[in-house]
Amino acid sequence: MQESLNSFTEMHKQLLVEKMSESVNRLEAPSVIKESMLYSLEAGGKRIRPLLLFATIAAFGQETKKGLNTAAALEMVHTYSLIHDDLPSMDDDDLRRGKPTNHKVFGEAYAVLAGDALLTYSFQLIADTDSNHASPEVKLALIQEFSKAAGAEGMVGGQVADIAGEEKQLSLPELEYIHINKTGKLLAFSVIAGAILSGADEERKKSLTEFATHLGLAFQIRDDILDLEGSEEMIGKRVGSDEVNKKSTYPSLLTMAGAKKALEEHTNLAKEKLAETGLDTFFLGEITDMLAVRDH
Amino acid sequence: MQESLNSFTEMHKQLLVEKMSESVNRLEAPSVIKESMLYSLEAGGKRIRPLLLFATIAAFGQETKKGLNTAAALEMVHTYSLIHDDLPSMDDDDLRRGKPTNHKVFGEAYAVLAGDALLTYSFQLIADTDSNHASPEVKLALIQEFSKAAGAEGMVGGQVADIAGEEKQLSLPELEYIHINKTGKLLAFSVIAGAILSGADEERKKSLTEFATHLGLAFQIRDDILDLEGSEEMIGKRVGSDEVNKKSTYPSLLTMAGAKKALEEHTNLAKEKLAETGLDTFFLGEITDMLAVRDH
Repeated sequence: MQESLNSFTEMHKQLLVEKMSESVNRLEAPSVIKESMLYSLEAGGKRIRPLLLFATIAAFGQETKKGLNTAAALEMVHTYSLIHDDLPSMDDDDLRRGKPTNHKVFGEAYAVLAGDALLTYSFQLIADTDSNHASPEVKLALIQEFSKAAGAEGMVGGQVADIAGEEKQLSLPELEYIHINKTGKLLAFSVIAGAILSGADEERKKSLTEFATHLGLAFQIRDDILDLEGSEEMIGKRVGSDEVNKKSTYPSLLTMAGAKKALEEHTNLAKEKLAETGLDTFFLGEITDMLAVRDH
Repeated sequence: MQESLNSFTEMHKQLLVEKMSESVNRLEAPSVIKESMLYSLEAGGKRIRPLLLFATIAAFGQETKKGLNTAAALEMVHTYSLIHDDLPSMDDDDLRRGKPTNHKVFGEAYAVLAGDALLTYSFQLIADTDSNHASPEVKLALIQEFSKAAGAEGMVGGQVADIAGEEKQLSLPELEYIHINKTGKLLAFSVIAGAILSGADEERKKSLTEFATHLGLAFQIRDDILDLEGSEEMIGKRVGSDEVNKKSTYPSLLTMAGAKKALEEHTNLAKEKLAETGLDTFFLGEITDMLAVRDH
């Protein structure tokens, strides 16, 4: 493998940001809603979902650009979820990635609507995928999986369970339900979408889905560890804010040492599942390692 | 035409409500989000968008049940828009259809999330349409048009312009921009979706789109007239609330007599466009008349 993860990441992040900006800019819509959408889309972030999608397509030895529309859709849905989660009626956060949150800049009404617009547009982007890159059947399969991963049976359901679980002590299965849904299913969709776009068989889809589930849990455990250990400067939000909110976290349930052990276990399981696919999963493996040791 | 509009309406409303309830009930999701979604879906209302869809398919002499998934999607998106519009950060309404608004019952966080879940699910419902009723190409065309009508270039954009225009005197073109986008485009999609599902040619799609645009404006003018004239009991919200909010309305821009004249003109233009199609548009014509004289 000649190409490093760094250059793979930089190239695809640039493609993604250009695609998102161009897509929003061409909308015939009031400028304030476009500004609000772009403010949050361009706020940076790891772009982990698009990168997982591109890396999965690369594992099948196919052209990654066939995933560009779906990658933009994924990042738009992730971004809408952050905008809505940050609202005063939800997590009431003033900072996101070191910048004022969307509603702090544009007000609550436009923040709600920017989220709504991003969610709505994401489905159009998938449907608009170039017909050379996806058949109608493939696009519909993507839309069905995407909707499940993002909606009441996935991300929204996880956020509901998260809110319902605030201020009470959760069991480990309850905490895992929240994270598998709130974060895990959209992460898993990133990988599954790459498999669908690459025409994967059911067996490989299954291994990749299991890979993504372990990756998602590892991701969340690392998040919880960072929230306790990280510096405010690094992660761009109040350190220990979950603790302030009395939220159950992996370190609070498992101890810090136990959380670190669980992180290692899920990371190893994720990599075992990757090996099962028999694909050239270099970038997926590198992303898995990177997420386990990241400092923000 | 043997069947009356009343029996057509009752039969299709029942099919619609059953479809929506069954669809939400089978979701594997926390019960509170399903309750919140169902609360607003089952709150009644005219179901005008689904009825327009069914009536359009009937005009083509086709089986209306082929539109059931899209009808449910339409009503879910309309319902999500009401839930979000009623939020304290937007119109801050306590009553909707004579019942407490969603956030008054479930709280703001769950109201935002119920809206998000309904919007997300609507795309899945279209994608899940029985393959005997729509080809993959037809489903994708529906999703593309639906997304445009509901998003920044349609309903969300109209709501943004509506908020931006509060507390200032609007011109008639500005007021029409708001209504064409906020209400008109989803009403138009209801008709266009029926045409797409029925395999209409471009010329008929064009006539039906123009029909729906005039219908949408007539609908909004009637709304503004009712808001001034209607009784609180009939329309289930504070009478004159637009006036209290200092919003521009058709009667405030055109006088009450002028608004009534504009209502009549748009109703007549709508019916001219219907006649152009050469289809059996009995139900579409009846719905147009009904909307022009409705008292709630």
